[in-house]
Amino acid sequence: MSGKLTVVGLGPGAPELVTPAVRKALEEATDLVGYFTYLDRVPPGPAGQRRHGSDNRVEVDRARHALALAEAGHTVVVVSGGDPGVFAMAAAVFEAIEEGEPAWRALDIRIEPGVTAMLAAAASVGAPLGGDFCAISLSDNLKAWSTIEQRLEAAARGDFVIALYNPASRARPEQLGRALVFLRGLKAADTVVLFVKAAGTADLQVRIESLGKADPAGVDMRTLVLIGSSRTRLIPREGATPWVYTPRSEREAQHDAG
Amino acid sequence: MSGKLTVVGLGPGAPELVTPAVRKALEEATDLVGYFTYLDRVPPGPAGQRRHGSDNRVEVDRARHALALAEAGHTVVVVSGGDPGVFAMAAAVFEAIEEGEPAWRALDIRIEPGVTAMLAAAASVGAPLGGDFCAISLSDNLKAWSTIEQRLEAAARGDFVIALYNPASRARPEQLGRALVFLRGLKAADTVVLFVKAAGTADLQVRIESLGKADPAGVDMRTLVLIGSSRTRLIPREGATPWVYTPRSEREAQHDAG
Repeated sequence: MSGKLTVVGLGPGAPELVTPAVRKALEEATDLVGYFTYLDRVPPGPAGQRRHGSDNRVEVDRARHALALAEAGHTVVVVSGGDPGVFAMAAAVFEAIEEGEPAWRALDIRIEPGVTAMLAAAASVGAPLGGDFCAISLSDNLKAWSTIEQRLEAAARGDFVIALYNPASRARPEQLGRALVFLRGLKAADTVVLFVKAAGTADLQVRIESLGKADPAGVDMRTLVLIGSSRTRLIPREGATPWVYTPRSEREAQHDAG
Repeated sequence: MSGKLTVVGLGPGAPELVTPAVRKALEEATDLVGYFTYLDRVPPGPAGQRRHGSDNRVEVDRARHALALAEAGHTVVVVSGGDPGVFAMAAAVFEAIEEGEPAWRALDIRIEPGVTAMLAAAASVGAPLGGDFCAISLSDNLKAWSTIEQRLEAAARGDFVIALYNPASRARPEQLGRALVFLRGLKAADTVVLFVKAAGTADLQVRIESLGKADPAGVDMRTLVLIGSSRTRLIPREGATPWVYTPRSEREAQHDAG
């Protein structure tokens, strides 16, 4: 069996955040498979390279299609945004393999990591992920809202910095508002909340708010929401947006450490 | 003030995982500042570029040195492994700024994200971060062990996949063993545990174990430990290491979703 399937992450959007390993996989592919929006980011490949675009929310179907192409001997690249292993196509590919053709387990399958949204969002404002943190998808088409609340509650009790992926969509505009209301019952009102839209692109927009007053309006699927820990703080700057960071130490005087 | 300071992440080790943005920052720097081990990974720069290597565990001193160089007009790059915002130099730089010279707040400071260790480790075994997940540093030179236990307990209660950074070092060889014993009281014995050493390099080594029998021996600072959620599972393959992944859905039949 000579087919090969590589699942790649394009990073947050800017070409200069695409790793050379991903670029090479894209250039060597005979077939690119992915959500239209992500395929549109890939520059034209060699002559004869085919593109198989599909709509959002058909991840397992798309994965099966990619696996069938690889089984037929093609060199297939499945394209994800960000990192393919974080709320993206890698897990869908393995779901398809587990339930699919036994021959798919013998395929040459690789995952090429990328810069996931929370890293680009954090970098654009300072270092809010400087302490322990967690990542939660607010999409409830794959899990119950009660599971999301259970995770938010655990994250608050552990005083993690929280990165919220998929905070809202046209189909679920109210998810983020519900999450913020829920978190207000568990965390201080002055907890830092960051809305970072289009991080890692030229369209970057940042809003810094407090949990008590955070307004979910205007948030879309390009927005990453970061909820600070009890220690996440601002560094004011004259004539510029404050830096936001979470100290590595839980002690007040960092110098005492190590 | 013409000085500039950029904090970059070199990714897990392989040159093909260094983003073009980071490569460009390294090439334009007059001064590179960092832990010796990370500086050694940077290819030779333009004539006259200076390297300021330092030992581990002097992060805030190193950050102050870098800020002073930038204040003096240099184009400084602070070098981190992985992503600079995840248990690395970005937070140390902002700690130094917050307590340091007021002029440092007016410097042109940028953070260039990178592929953090857990993404490379996950990619090397499948898609274990396919669901909600958290990242916890086991280093207790900056926080109390009781805080680490509080976070591990919260992560277990939330059924997050857990990425453990800094699992062990010569100074703290027993941290990981303590964490595994603690987690055994909270999670099922058959929970998947992955020890991924040198992910994203040619020296990759993977051990797949169960929480009940997981052995911390041989783990070092190049190892990333991943503890599965209740749904993390293996896909056996003939003649190869099983794939490990966490389904995106909490439902048994993924096809019912969205």
